[in-house]
Amino acid sequence: MPLGYGIPAFFFFAAPASDNVPLEMLAVFGVAKLLAELFERMHQPGLVGEILAGVLLGPSLLGWIQPNQVLTSLAELGVLFLLFRVGLEVKSSELVRVGKTASLVALLGILVPFLLGWGILRLWGAPSIESIFVGAAMVATSVGITAQVLAAKGLLDHAASKIILAAAVIDDVLGLIVLAIVSSMARGEINVAELVFTAVAAIGFTFVVAKWGSRAMGTVVPHIEQRLKAGEVQFNVAVIVLFGLAVLAMYAGVAAIIGAFLAGMALSDSLQPRVQDLTHGVSELLVPFFLVGIGLHLDLSVFSQTDTLLLSAVILVAAVLSKLVGCGLGALSMGSADAFRVGAGMIPRGEVGMVVAQIGLNLGVIPPPVYGVAVFMAVLTTVVAPPLLNLSFRGVPVGRPVERFSID
Amino acid sequence: MPLGYGIPAFFFFAAPASDNVPLEMLAVFGVAKLLAELFERMHQPGLVGEILAGVLLGPSLLGWIQPNQVLTSLAELGVLFLLFRVGLEVKSSELVRVGKTASLVALLGILVPFLLGWGILRLWGAPSIESIFVGAAMVATSVGITAQVLAAKGLLDHAASKIILAAAVIDDVLGLIVLAIVSSMARGEINVAELVFTAVAAIGFTFVVAKWGSRAMGTVVPHIEQRLKAGEVQFNVAVIVLFGLAVLAMYAGVAAIIGAFLAGMALSDSLQPRVQDLTHGVSELLVPFFLVGIGLHLDLSVFSQTDTLLLSAVILVAAVLSKLVGCGLGALSMGSADAFRVGAGMIPRGEVGMVVAQIGLNLGVIPPPVYGVAVFMAVLTTVVAPPLLNLSFRGVPVGRPVERFSID
Repeated sequence: MPLGYGIPAFFFFAAPASDNVPLEMLAVFGVAKLLAELFERMHQPGLVGEILAGVLLGPSLLGWIQPNQVLTSLAELGVLFLLFRVGLEVKSSELVRVGKTASLVALLGILVPFLLGWGILRLWGAPSIESIFVGAAMVATSVGITAQVLAAKGLLDHAASKIILAAAVIDDVLGLIVLAIVSSMARGEINVAELVFTAVAAIGFTFVVAKWGSRAMGTVVPHIEQRLKAGEVQFNVAVIVLFGLAVLAMYAGVAAIIGAFLAGMALSDSLQPRVQDLTHGVSELLVPFFLVGIGLHLDLSVFSQTDTLLLSAVILVAAVLSKLVGCGLGALSMGSADAFRVGAGMIPRGEVGMVVAQIGLNLGVIPPPVYGVAVFMAVLTTVVAPPLLNLSFRGVPVGRPVERFSID
Repeated sequence: MPLGYGIPAFFFFAAPASDNVPLEMLAVFGVAKLLAELFERMHQPGLVGEILAGVLLGPSLLGWIQPNQVLTSLAELGVLFLLFRVGLEVKSSELVRVGKTASLVALLGILVPFLLGWGILRLWGAPSIESIFVGAAMVATSVGITAQVLAAKGLLDHAASKIILAAAVIDDVLGLIVLAIVSSMARGEINVAELVFTAVAAIGFTFVVAKWGSRAMGTVVPHIEQRLKAGEVQFNVAVIVLFGLAVLAMYAGVAAIIGAFLAGMALSDSLQPRVQDLTHGVSELLVPFFLVGIGLHLDLSVFSQTDTLLLSAVILVAAVLSKLVGCGLGALSMGSADAFRVGAGMIPRGEVGMVVAQIGLNLGVIPPPVYGVAVFMAVLTTVVAPPLLNLSFRGVPVGRPVERFSID
């Protein structure tokens, strides 16, 4: 092989030989957009194509891409910027206003899937703690998928969308508490004081930022902007607030993306549309990594056994129906059409369900095949939800997509 | 420690426990922008502050951040998008027009630093192959730093800027050939056929894309745009062309950033300003990681010995003067003011110099202290160049910065 071919891979950067970053970016981004295009042509949501691109590229099928730290970080950044951008479109006062309905949606959307998942595993003959973990994995909605669908269709202003977003925030906090309880049960030591502290920190952080964040930023940002000189001041402030609240959210016990969403909401009155475009560039580049990352984790080899395959199918149907019915019931006061929308929007479990299953696997309370079933459920709910969501919004005049916010 | 604190770090993502991405982002981005602001207030270039943020956060001083694969990848993405965006501002016909002067600038800018570096090390008593490697590390300009200064000041349209960009491309190709030669010398086996192949592949790729890329994209992009349905078509095409040419460049033996620059140039006539904003969002977020990444590599502990400290100072002065004089001489036909600008613009060695030193270290032909000297030279030239560049452009009416391209 000629010399020239050996050098460039580490010609670029002095750090310990990284993989070929541009090639990996090209493969992930290119295949994701190719399948998105195919799906759009078949009148299916493009992001389902992007998730399936992950299944295609991942260890299950082609094996071209393995989940690695760089891809995981890019995915995490992508979904942080996505939720930030969605937050920018939402006024916190609107979410607080729908708080009561949203709380009911979140609560029923946690109880019904948990009981159903637990019941199915018990009937299947699984031990109690294993059943509890599978139920817990079916609890938490991953709002990223739904947010992407709603933002791309310009539907964030719809009444059902507000309920979904508010319920997803509450759902995350409640899901955290469920996870804390089942994790301590698995370890056989329940410390009530700790659980209460966890709950209070998570709820307190979320409530304080949602309630007063917007006012605080409204007074702070103009001051900062006047005084700073360097470059794109507003963008820099936005990025720092985004990561700052993401970090605080993690310390308070909630997911980083909830912090990013709250950061967006807090800044929604204080930023120029230009910042929207700049952050949109980041999420447009990185959200495919989030979607592909979900697909990458699907391991089809688990389904060589008929009974695991059967269990997967049953759990998937239960996961879809339980959110549809549970959350739908919670939103029934808005009419059946909106109840369907809210139910469909809460279906995706995505990375959150996978993490719960991962914890169960690490604690040794769920065996690898059942872990595979939970991941299958988590991935497939993200594939099933977008078409259902589109169906539920059929006939609703599509708004201006967030993507084109400040241009045309 | 309450339960809630243990969970979130791996609550977020199922991949093998990554580091705390939001916290690392916050630290790097936040400290970089803080020092950028400080430097702007002292009427110094902000990006010097960002490089020094890397020195501050890195192993030399605070030790908060270690170079790792995630940061390296973000840095690489940042500089790829930066060069792409700079390419979008440049017409290839303009670069081809200045090709003769630029070639002379590049050639003298390689010969003078190489001979000076080699000579100093020989006088210092170093073995021949070690001296050759230090000379080679002083050869290649890192165009990222200069591109950022010129873009931020809206000076990309200036005649001297065109020369700098064209010369940097040629310099990269020549630098690659120098590296190929000295690497094979260090291994004691020079295969002339291989070297010629390397040279032809690198020059051929660069020439073909620079010459015909723009015309090819002008016919292809409108076709693609008409036919594709999914989302931000132009942005997706831009990203795919960017990474595609970056990958091809690496296979052809040139640096990935040269591919990104050529991709931007090829697309400069075919894209809407909106794509500029979106890609600008990405580079605005990630260029600080490139700058901090340079600073991170500086290891001050090497300078506990007086003779290494002395050698570092001499090599730094030689590195600055040799490009200033060598490249300046090459551009003297444009007048002394432009010659100064071109010379100053070619000073930064950045990551390229570090890579050459790293190769020498890995081959065992330069000892760790001399590696430290080369890294010192590579980092400090990036710190010295921006103020000199600003000085050289003093009095030139500052254009519209690229940052604000399609707004206001």
